[in-house]
Amino acid sequence: MSVEGLGRGRVTLVGGGPGPVDLISLRGYRALLDADVVLYDSLVDPEMLAEVEVETIYVGKRCGQHAMTQEQICELLAQHALGGKHVVRLKGGDPMVLGRGGEEARYLSALDIPIALVPGITSCVAAPELAGIPVTHRGVADSFHVVSAHRRNDEIEFSLPAYHARTTIVILMGVRTLPVWREQLRGLGYPDDLPVAFVTSGGWDAQKVLVSTLDNAVQDAEDAGVDSPTTAVVGHVVALRAEILGLQVERAAVG
Amino acid sequence: MSVEGLGRGRVTLVGGGPGPVDLISLRGYRALLDADVVLYDSLVDPEMLAEVEVETIYVGKRCGQHAMTQEQICELLAQHALGGKHVVRLKGGDPMVLGRGGEEARYLSALDIPIALVPGITSCVAAPELAGIPVTHRGVADSFHVVSAHRRNDEIEFSLPAYHARTTIVILMGVRTLPVWREQLRGLGYPDDLPVAFVTSGGWDAQKVLVSTLDNAVQDAEDAGVDSPTTAVVGHVVALRAEILGLQVERAAVG
Repeated sequence: MSVEGLGRGRVTLVGGGPGPVDLISLRGYRALLDADVVLYDSLVDPEMLAEVEVETIYVGKRCGQHAMTQEQICELLAQHALGGKHVVRLKGGDPMVLGRGGEEARYLSALDIPIALVPGITSCVAAPELAGIPVTHRGVADSFHVVSAHRRNDEIEFSLPAYHARTTIVILMGVRTLPVWREQLRGLGYPDDLPVAFVTSGGWDAQKVLVSTLDNAVQDAEDAGVDSPTTAVVGHVVALRAEILGLQVERAAVG
Repeated sequence: MSVEGLGRGRVTLVGGGPGPVDLISLRGYRALLDADVVLYDSLVDPEMLAEVEVETIYVGKRCGQHAMTQEQICELLAQHALGGKHVVRLKGGDPMVLGRGGEEARYLSALDIPIALVPGITSCVAAPELAGIPVTHRGVADSFHVVSAHRRNDEIEFSLPAYHARTTIVILMGVRTLPVWREQLRGLGYPDDLPVAFVTSGGWDAQKVLVSTLDNAVQDAEDAGVDSPTTAVVGHVVALRAEILGLQVERAAVG
């Protein structure tokens, strides 16, 4: 296969950011404007596509139902690029943070299709931040650990580290598996009174924040009806929220 | 102190992204355009400010020399906001990833000054990504751990977890302390042949990538003259680089 035959054909993998349309990067936005076709996921703001007058193809999943398999998505990207099109693959968050961007890039590179990577604002940092929780904070946390709690295999434990007071744990896709990772954290030495926050729809108008403790997290999340997409944050930084947002927390709670 | 007296006075903390001007978010860019004054750091692309016709104040550090203390920065932010100005505090990366954004937000909130947080693309994900290294990759890594290796106190160990094959370690500000964290990783069970990458000036034209192993990292980094700002990546995902970038790696190496 020859690159010469591709013409304009190439794929730009773009991180769309944590949700709202204006949290995409300028570079990502310009790629959208230049695209001939956009393949997008369910975490992408529909508004982002409304502004762009190109062909769009939905390839995400909703309620566990995939519109396409990963292989089909790769094939479709290649097919359009080999047809001479500038294909933008638009993903929620950042393509490399549990977004399978690496798999798509590898597939396309094996076919010698030119690719470009445009990072995005990842919700593992942005969702807590927009809820007033810093993943790091001088004197409180100098590190953070991001992990998927999406369970594919019952025999595999989640990739969680032993308790370290200065490390914030950020858990993605962990609503359904909360009882499991909560027990794993306890076994790893995390104290029962350690603060836990659940940020649902972080950054959107519908954003909800539930603050609990490791001890009460399962019950509190159930009572509050915490649902996906939720970013869970475990660590002492959660306690900074009130001071960081100040009176704005109270105002928001009242309003 | 009353919010009513502030007029337009408020502070927007903006993450400028990993470097190049077009990796800021649309929301961050629009905040810059709306600002009356911008306080910025050394990691910010000067081009980003050239496009914006407002007063700019440099408050970063270069070569270990701070232009201002953190307290002075906080006071200056407050002073301008209390004077009725829309102040943008522009930081490299994301304000909450080792950027002290939480400290500034807390200071301003205590004075009842309205704040807004605009996340940025963090270099801990983007620098590896722009070098072709995914921090997560299905079947290889389902988690990543970001840690500052900036040493403030010789008695404190870095917040590094025990070895887990499926966790990628991202080390920021770790060039000078490389021999120290390398030994710590060894003590934590990281294998000698584990790949290590150093991404210097990630995302810029001057980007350099050095791939080594834990065993050879100190010598290789010294031989190559690896310098700040460098993002170090430790883990099996580093080995994916050649396949992800495909022939583009060879082309770049030749060209």
